[in-house]
Amino acid sequence: MEKNVVVRLARRPRGLVTREDFDIREEPVPEPREGEFRVRAEYLSLDPAMRGWMNEGRSYVPPIGIGEVMRGYAVGHVDVSKHKDFKPGDAVVGLFGAQRYALSNGSGVTRADPGLAPLETWVGGLGMPGLTAYFGLLEVGQAREGDTVVVSAASGAVGQVVGQIARIMGCRAVGVVGGQEKRRVALEEFGFDACVDYKAGGLSDQLNETCPQGIDVDFENVGGEIFDAVLAQMNRFGRVAVCGLISGYAATEAPPGLQNTRSILVNRLRVRGFIVFDFTSRYGEALNQLTEWHAAGKLRFREDVRSGGLAQFPEVLNLLFTGGNTGKLVLKLDR
Amino acid sequence: MEKNVVVRLARRPRGLVTREDFDIREEPVPEPREGEFRVRAEYLSLDPAMRGWMNEGRSYVPPIGIGEVMRGYAVGHVDVSKHKDFKPGDAVVGLFGAQRYALSNGSGVTRADPGLAPLETWVGGLGMPGLTAYFGLLEVGQAREGDTVVVSAASGAVGQVVGQIARIMGCRAVGVVGGQEKRRVALEEFGFDACVDYKAGGLSDQLNETCPQGIDVDFENVGGEIFDAVLAQMNRFGRVAVCGLISGYAATEAPPGLQNTRSILVNRLRVRGFIVFDFTSRYGEALNQLTEWHAAGKLRFREDVRSGGLAQFPEVLNLLFTGGNTGKLVLKLDR
Repeated sequence: MEKNVVVRLARRPRGLVTREDFDIREEPVPEPREGEFRVRAEYLSLDPAMRGWMNEGRSYVPPIGIGEVMRGYAVGHVDVSKHKDFKPGDAVVGLFGAQRYALSNGSGVTRADPGLAPLETWVGGLGMPGLTAYFGLLEVGQAREGDTVVVSAASGAVGQVVGQIARIMGCRAVGVVGGQEKRRVALEEFGFDACVDYKAGGLSDQLNETCPQGIDVDFENVGGEIFDAVLAQMNRFGRVAVCGLISGYAATEAPPGLQNTRSILVNRLRVRGFIVFDFTSRYGEALNQLTEWHAAGKLRFREDVRSGGLAQFPEVLNLLFTGGNTGKLVLKLDR
Repeated sequence: MEKNVVVRLARRPRGLVTREDFDIREEPVPEPREGEFRVRAEYLSLDPAMRGWMNEGRSYVPPIGIGEVMRGYAVGHVDVSKHKDFKPGDAVVGLFGAQRYALSNGSGVTRADPGLAPLETWVGGLGMPGLTAYFGLLEVGQAREGDTVVVSAASGAVGQVVGQIARIMGCRAVGVVGGQEKRRVALEEFGFDACVDYKAGGLSDQLNETCPQGIDVDFENVGGEIFDAVLAQMNRFGRVAVCGLISGYAATEAPPGLQNTRSILVNRLRVRGFIVFDFTSRYGEALNQLTEWHAAGKLRFREDVRSGGLAQFPEVLNLLFTGGNTGKLVLKLDR
């Protein structure tokens, strides 16, 4: 009889995660009660936010408790249902956690449509990362035709969508990535107008060359020195959408700190942090737009799908913080 | 025959200004041409922004050129006029510069009403600092009844007005100052609900005690470690009005940098830099409100008037950066 495989948080990690931070074990497959259904998850989404959820302390959601299932988005099919709105075979996305089988009462669950895009895209460009890009760029960043938009981690899950939407809106899209392969992907696959590789050095000069009109919108995924370099070249009345600060998530000591805060004052910038959850009531509108652009061939998605199942969870998660993935990072749960 | 006294920038200062950075000299009193009037300035406003104007490089206004009259606001009376809208005896405020006599074509000049408040108040609470407080708190900071508002440099030109408007709006006003005398002034003269003294140490603990409901609005005048400590205690969806970063203006080496940028993300803060000039079209509305509150006894102003005339300009200006003034710093130009 098949067993469930579950990743539970064993202790609070410090810096990058290690295998010892988790208890990855077989458990009985759970049975749904009335009003619940069971999902057989096929792809687990690996997101930078997951690292923050493991830390103690105040954040936008409570930390994962020790012994609890690692929180995470997954996509799969309904397997058994005692819920009136979900039937076996339905493709669904939700916070099912890092486990092979999950129970759900339907709360926060959305539908995937494998006819429109492969299953894994529904935790990527047509999932939370796509929605994050959409609201972050258009609502928080207020990107408008003619703007120069810089996005860090430009080949990542969110960045790739930001760049493409910026192009659709008539903006100049400039990516920041670490490494020449990511740069190639940003330029060739996602159509960025320009892309700078911070690992090649001279980031400020590179930004200056690729943003001759200055920067109107910074979609900030990284923080630290990259954020600082972009801040210094922002235009008057520019907007900064603070979506993520991944450079600090797995840091074991305090980073140098942001130097160019003076640019916020002198250029009258609007710097705004956001979480995609703040836009829940508008997910439908955004998803319609994203799927329409995708169907029209204007929006392409790239996933970096890793195999090995949940046993590989810690190693694969760390790729996000070491720059090891190119595209939306996903763990395939099927053996 | 009387001479003019003029402060000209002799070289670009480094850190605090010195006497050698300026050429303070007698010059002939200038004669107005058609469409101009001459002002005999009585009080020169000393503002933190003046230090920034002396630096080379991109800012919100061009730097003062070497050899040019030091830029600055002053208040005085029209002396001779060839301008149809201004007549001798009119009390006027404008960017007349650090000089005893100035010519003006009326551009950017506003009226002072010595019947409503002493002349020096028109470069303070009823001048740019008051307008800065008004727009910064209500428009940029979006302060609303019940909010906890923290303002740094709370006994200064802008801070004192911010605290009092916050109280008028039904907010909890918490000041941050350096020194016990400034703290006393903030509490007793301006009616802050609480005031912390960063020089007494334990700033974060002091903020925690005085802001038991967290911080909704930060009116930031100082930057550096004070900004960092406040950022860490901001409430979800809080606003930061970045008005000044005085801690860095006369710094000769890079300060440590802002550490708590994560709070911007997690708490979805809106951090916005502003300059009072951005609200020029609404000065009239604001000034009406400020004078009304002042006449009703709800708004008190404290100037720190220094004597000695323009010969003392460098030493008096430095007081702003060494914490030497309590209240709006003004230099009396009459001998």
